[in-house]
Amino acid sequence: MNTENIGFIGLGRMGKSMASNLVKKGFRLMVMDLNPRAVTDLVRLGARASGDVAQLARDCTIVITMLPTSVEVESVALGADGIFANAIAGTVLMDMSTIAPVATDRLQQEAIRHGMSVVDAPVGRLAEHADRAESLFMVGASDADFARVKPLLDAMGSTVYHCGAVGTGGRTKLVNNYVAVTLCQVNAEALALSQRFGLDLASTLKVLLGTSANNGQLRLNFPNKVLAGDTTPGFTIDLAHKDMSLVLAAAHAAKVPMPVAAAVHESFSAARANACGSIDFSGIADVICDLARIERARTPSGWSPD
Amino acid sequence: MNTENIGFIGLGRMGKSMASNLVKKGFRLMVMDLNPRAVTDLVRLGARASGDVAQLARDCTIVITMLPTSVEVESVALGADGIFANAIAGTVLMDMSTIAPVATDRLQQEAIRHGMSVVDAPVGRLAEHADRAESLFMVGASDADFARVKPLLDAMGSTVYHCGAVGTGGRTKLVNNYVAVTLCQVNAEALALSQRFGLDLASTLKVLLGTSANNGQLRLNFPNKVLAGDTTPGFTIDLAHKDMSLVLAAAHAAKVPMPVAAAVHESFSAARANACGSIDFSGIADVICDLARIERARTPSGWSPD
Amino acid sequence: MNTENIGFIGLGRMGKSMASNLVKKGFRLMVMDLNPRAVTDLVRLGARASGDVAQLARDCTIVITMLPTSVEVESVALGADGIFANAIAGTVLMDMSTIAPVATDRLQQEAIRHGMSVVDAPVGRLAEHADRAESLFMVGASDADFARVKPLLDAMGSTVYHCGAVGTGGRTKLVNNYVAVTLCQVNAEALALSQRFGLDLASTLKVLLGTSANNGQLRLNFPNKVLAGDTTPGFTIDLAHKDMSLVLAAAHAAKVPMPVAAAVHESFSAARANACGSIDFSGIADVICDLARIERARTPSGWSPD
Amino acid sequence: MNTENIGFIGLGRMGKSMASNLVKKGFRLMVMDLNPRAVTDLVRLGARASGDVAQLARDCTIVITMLPTSVEVESVALGADGIFANAIAGTVLMDMSTIAPVATDRLQQEAIRHGMSVVDAPVGRLAEHADRAESLFMVGASDADFARVKPLLDAMGSTVYHCGAVGTGGRTKLVNNYVAVTLCQVNAEALALSQRFGLDLASTLKVLLGTSANNGQLRLNFPNKVLAGDTTPGFTIDLAHKDMSLVLAAAHAAKVPMPVAAAVHESFSAARANACGSIDFSGIADVICDLARIERARTPSGWSPD
Repeated sequence: MNTENIGFIGLGRMGKSMASNLVKKGFRLMVMDLNPRAVTDLVRLGARASGDVAQLARDCTIVITMLPTSVEVESVALGADGIFANAIAGTVLMDMSTIAPVATDRLQQEAIRHGMSVVDAPVGRLAEHADRAESLFMVGASDADFARVKPLLDAMGSTVYHCGAVGTGGRTKLVNNYVAVTLCQVNAEALALSQRFGLDLASTLKVLLGTSANNGQLRLNFPNKVLAGDTTPGFTIDLAHKDMSLVLAAAHAAKVPMPVAAAVHESFSAARANACGSIDFSGIADVICDLARIERARTPSGWSPD
Repeated sequence: MNTENIGFIGLGRMGKSMASNLVKKGFRLMVMDLNPRAVTDLVRLGARASGDVAQLARDCTIVITMLPTSVEVESVALGADGIFANAIAGTVLMDMSTIAPVATDRLQQEAIRHGMSVVDAPVGRLAEHADRAESLFMVGASDADFARVKPLLDAMGSTVYHCGAVGTGGRTKLVNNYVAVTLCQVNAEALALSQRFGLDLASTLKVLLGTSANNGQLRLNFPNKVLAGDTTPGFTIDLAHKDMSLVLAAAHAAKVPMPVAAAVHESFSAARANACGSIDFSGIADVICDLARIERARTPSGWSPD
Repeated sequence: MNTENIGFIGLGRMGKSMASNLVKKGFRLMVMDLNPRAVTDLVRLGARASGDVAQLARDCTIVITMLPTSVEVESVALGADGIFANAIAGTVLMDMSTIAPVATDRLQQEAIRHGMSVVDAPVGRLAEHADRAESLFMVGASDADFARVKPLLDAMGSTVYHCGAVGTGGRTKLVNNYVAVTLCQVNAEALALSQRFGLDLASTLKVLLGTSANNGQLRLNFPNKVLAGDTTPGFTIDLAHKDMSLVLAAAHAAKVPMPVAAAVHESFSAARANACGSIDFSGIADVICDLARIERARTPSGWSPD
Repeated sequence: MNTENIGFIGLGRMGKSMASNLVKKGFRLMVMDLNPRAVTDLVRLGARASGDVAQLARDCTIVITMLPTSVEVESVALGADGIFANAIAGTVLMDMSTIAPVATDRLQQEAIRHGMSVVDAPVGRLAEHADRAESLFMVGASDADFARVKPLLDAMGSTVYHCGAVGTGGRTKLVNNYVAVTLCQVNAEALALSQRFGLDLASTLKVLLGTSANNGQLRLNFPNKVLAGDTTPGFTIDLAHKDMSLVLAAAHAAKVPMPVAAAVHESFSAARANACGSIDFSGIADVICDLARIERARTPSGWSPD
């Protein structure tokens, strides 16, 4: 039985499910939300209600926030009536909202001044996963704090990644969601082109799902190539650039706007301008890092995706 | 035993491996290339050499071309000394080069005038796959022609997709390579951002490979959502747009140029301008089609990825 | 002689010059800044110093803010110690910082609650123009407020545009700076292409300055064409699209990345997808508005640029 | 009186006007076009008709081509029946079409083999200017050839720029049209933003025409700053980047897609990643050249725009 008192602020679509799972699994929960219905529902499940952040802060040793933006998180964390000013030393604020990483950094600085600490643990997957306690969490926390919050995360989700120190949870989520949203756009542009070409959709999907166009790149190609420091060519940047020229020429002839294809084309053009045309196309990762003076990405030797 | 005489023009890095596999598996092959070494090597394996397109055309009923660009393909297919002018009626030209689909269309028109036909069968995967007869082919052909070339494709590769009529092979390859090259850029931008954020690479990869950011979208999410005509929200376009705002704000603060992220952000902005902010983010596929007056993509009912 | 007491908060590189010009021209000024040197310099010129926003607010009827971001502006305007809580009814806050228009809107709502009002008057041109009282101001204000602040603006600059109600000054500045910064990028891409082409720079400049590529478009072409509702073609969107295809093909062959050219190309592709290829290329303005459900821009009949 | 026989191939919307002006001003003209009406009209004005490129080539010492694409130009210039195979040594082919510069380079190589030469002189301005002999020509030619064709150009237009050797005319036109088409898009995005902001159009135009947003940059700012090697800041890249952040944040809030603004923002981000944030914003020209390994653009000392 966990002996900590848990505060939970923010019982929206996701937060309510997450809080419910905590109560159902035996955690002592004090909840707060502007919406009295959501509070009542949680009270029925066994939580206590609080109408006052300061009171909740005094009563709890772990406070979870699940709020829309950094404005709301800062308004409950900071100030004379806020969590940091009223909780006891050692309290952990676990913010599970998706907010700007710099806001998380500011919270952590303020927490340290009060002898407390912050954990950032934004949520992956959809609301229906939260209902079933199948969420994914990307967690930035010290090892000690991670150990304290881990039982709560296990109660709310099925996959927990400890990404590193405070701030890495939110940053990892941004990298992840950049990829997720962009793939959505890429798929959409590909399907638009396919439709305009008059291709059979089922056939196109079969091909896209059967080749490395499917993001096996990150699992298979990148780790063996650029991330291992090997850019000897399987498929060169020059050939990738040539294929994108054919794609865009065909798209322009067919009147299919493909802004992402065009942006990619220019990036490969920049690589060619920097004399990298003959390396493997995964090497674009090195080129992009070099052009922005970022350290190249390398996996440790022996790394495997599984 | 296949009774057709096969011509093979273009013994480059890929073509030579493909032709070799045909000879080794018992096909009667006549080959041609500007490079005498490659021709000699094939002759040693059992092929006959030809120095003359017209002669090769007269002698073969299926002629394969594997050449750098449409210029070379047209120069061997067209004209008084070309394939169409010299082959017997019923001959099939199977072009396996990656060329502009409009060039394939022009070849097919010319073939029809001579009582012949064209198959476009560009090659997926890498040169090393061609060595091992493990290439993937995307084939545009009539059903009858597909049946004729299928044994050859099976001898040269391990995966053969019949995409539809002539011209669909090359178009499918363009759609596929758009996705493949763009994913490469997306991964590279994501890794650059992750590096600048100071994230641990192994942790980042674990997350990216463990969530739907990995292109499970096209296998799982799209078919059940937008491609089935269902855009009730799991994760809305508005939320995707908000996350991209956070991504770009963090990238700008960290001085990481992300041109593809920026292009995606504007596309989602266009969707919001068209009152589509509250639909599922897979619905961007419909929005893109609508804004370009393209028919929306829909899988037939009962479609499954496997 | 102006009888109002003027407060001036923010004596940075621009603000100090502006405040100095006010004092020199006889306005009664109370100044405030974190930097004591800047305050001392103004006091020497005849201003009074204030160390306290509340005191300054009680003493002045027009308060000017010239601060880095909306955070600083809001911190002096709002709260118990801020301008609105301490100034007398009828006081005008003239914010000359460049901040987000929504922040200006929030300030105005708060001002109204206190019987006060806001003027947004961001500054155009460079610091050296501010030194010489040659700045340009884009002003959002009620007519009455504009009349009150006009003498101050005339003392600090040489060009004053009354753009409309509160909030229009900052919005106009954003539109203007979008154009200014983007033209800078466009010129830079053009010069990079010209250099890679090996063209003589003086010759290229002569041509660029001698044709409508020079932004005579907005003075001459747009008002007579799209802004007058006339999109009969002088130079069609199709031809503009074709020329951009040639530009990008040449740039790609020469390894010159041109991300802006690529984005423009896709926008013209979207216009063609919407059956607008045969209208005048200025008509892209209508297409962009239509695709984003924005009212088309039209000048009143009889409008002239001078 | 000019003693050369002039051939003119291509009597389309522009070509017919240009040819007419030559005949009216006393040049001996032989014309050719697929459209018999256009030929008849020119014959009425005093030209002779030719139905045969070879005959025209034998009869003329300067042959002008004004055709849709490089395909048509090459088909009349090259081959056994073409201009080069049939004209006398010393003949000049003046191509006034807008074609890919590499096609011009190929023509010139072929011309040299026949003891002839090429002039590329694409046309600026609109069809109505061609009617009134007010076209602008960007000419790539040797000095001797330029002297020969100059009288013809003066008869067809009012502004003639000798840009350099063969190939520079077309390349200059591409640079110029990149700027012209892109400014059109930039103006359109600016007007869309202004409309969505609810700004008064006449006021916005007044501001845009009154500040350096109007392309005085290339006439005034660039020559004194980056093109003179001076990037001490008037307005820094960091400030330009910050303003673009405000522009895009406001545009996103207002649901105005601005793909060009987004591309520009990323370019300034790349400059900041390369430690160039504190230089003058015109310095983006140097940054772009450096990142693509292009020689920086510099005007000769003493250069002036007039």
